[in-house]
Amino acid sequence: MNMPVDQLVDGFVRFRIDLSYDGTDFAGWARQPGMRTVHGEVVRVLTQLFGDSETDFDLRVAGRTDAGVHAEHQVIHVDLNERQIRRIGRNKDVAGRLNKLLDQDVRVRSFEQAPEHFHARYGATYRRYRYRVADATANQNAMHGRFTLWLSYELDVLEMQATALEFYGLHDFASFCKPRDIGTTIRDIKEITVKRNKHDNNVIEIEVMADAFCHNMIRSIVGALIKVGGGRATKAEVVAALGAKNRAHPYKVVEPHGLSMIEIGYPPVKKLAEQVALVQRTRTLDEN
Amino acid sequence: MNMPVDQLVDGFVRFRIDLSYDGTDFAGWARQPGMRTVHGEVVRVLTQLFGDSETDFDLRVAGRTDAGVHAEHQVIHVDLNERQIRRIGRNKDVAGRLNKLLDQDVRVRSFEQAPEHFHARYGATYRRYRYRVADATANQNAMHGRFTLWLSYELDVLEMQATALEFYGLHDFASFCKPRDIGTTIRDIKEITVKRNKHDNNVIEIEVMADAFCHNMIRSIVGALIKVGGGRATKAEVVAALGAKNRAHPYKVVEPHGLSMIEIGYPPVKKLAEQVALVQRTRTLDEN
Repeated sequence: MNMPVDQLVDGFVRFRIDLSYDGTDFAGWARQPGMRTVHGEVVRVLTQLFGDSETDFDLRVAGRTDAGVHAEHQVIHVDLNERQIRRIGRNKDVAGRLNKLLDQDVRVRSFEQAPEHFHARYGATYRRYRYRVADATANQNAMHGRFTLWLSYELDVLEMQATALEFYGLHDFASFCKPRDIGTTIRDIKEITVKRNKHDNNVIEIEVMADAFCHNMIRSIVGALIKVGGGRATKAEVVAALGAKNRAHPYKVVEPHGLSMIEIGYPPVKKLAEQVALVQRTRTLDEN
Repeated sequence: MNMPVDQLVDGFVRFRIDLSYDGTDFAGWARQPGMRTVHGEVVRVLTQLFGDSETDFDLRVAGRTDAGVHAEHQVIHVDLNERQIRRIGRNKDVAGRLNKLLDQDVRVRSFEQAPEHFHARYGATYRRYRYRVADATANQNAMHGRFTLWLSYELDVLEMQATALEFYGLHDFASFCKPRDIGTTIRDIKEITVKRNKHDNNVIEIEVMADAFCHNMIRSIVGALIKVGGGRATKAEVVAALGAKNRAHPYKVVEPHGLSMIEIGYPPVKKLAEQVALVQRTRTLDEN
């Protein structure tokens, strides 16, 4: 078989599924034997509805998330053959039917036929994540405890904003990436903001949008920003750490439970094929 | 001892504690042997900080919540003697210290000396609760699954609003109260609204504010409103059920996990004594 990776095979129809999940009780996205993972749960209910699939429906995900990380919005695609599609039958509310089979901590937001050339991972132009921190100034809302990092001291949001600006644009983020054998650590941060959300308990929201992220990148950057916000590091020190392109700095990877994927961006339908081709030319397979 | 109920004993100082909790993993507010309850947890950490108390710090709560019900905002008071107060020592951040001792699903928002005549329960002029329902029109955000009722069908919010209006004001809510041996079922609903929250996944929020609620009252009313919203009951039928003053109607008590206490109202400080005296004259002890 000499065709491009992940091209749709004749006789199959591609479906886009939008999901959300509370990552607390999952060992992350990726399937692992004996572990409860989001991928595993989704394949389980797809199998219940559509029957066995040797290839696990060729499911692909926009961004794999680590253990404990949530998704307010995640996008996947699956390829279904005619026999599988016939099992939909008369009740077209596939999202509702999948939700009945899923536990409450994973929800299908929508299930629809994907446009031509759609690919959940290679078609995405950006990913957006949010990290939530409740410092001493925020209201302590225990109902959000599963997706909030609690700090007992106050953070200086202005200093954090000023430091965050230094991450904008194209950088080699080697200092803030967990090492891998292969692949570049160059990424393009298109947006990074730090603000208090007055409508949500005065919690500090750190939002980062980029073409893609290397492993642990956001949690490492948040670790550095929290040090600055708490007065235990300066902007200059963080800038120097970024420039050094190695992990010999004191900023730790913060806990996963404050982090949520909140948006995946796709180009307009007529640009999809172009985007998928572009990403396949330039990306290695281990990236998110 | 012939003094009024709950009057502050000489040598004690009253403290107001504002709390929030995720009720999922609690058997409700009230202490029960062998069960994990919010009251039990709060007394446990107060004891760690202030030492043993034979009277459990004379803790009183604004509104007891049932198993599974949450509190974005709850208010309690405790009475501390001089020996206990001395244990505060130099670190005045009592809220922060209690939070370090508590599990993540209970948070102390603030701990401060109460004004004269303050009483967490008898001083309250109103309680406000919110019930969250995600119908087929709402976005399915699994991160909010612990405090959202999922419905697979769409609700007619306008019909629900129109029906909710009928509950406004002073009524005998016997049809929507779990029976008790003693106490009146007359309550005064001061506000009841049904709306979609565009800033929160288009979830339907049913908010009810009243002087006080009888047992299961909000969850019973929400049950009736959902029947109307789903087209399986009419406003006229619900009005007739309210007028009948008995529970011979088909509206069920909905699940607890959608319900949260969100606000407790107190009068200005100079009116506190008056409010406490008023409530003590008119209320029986089993009400919330």
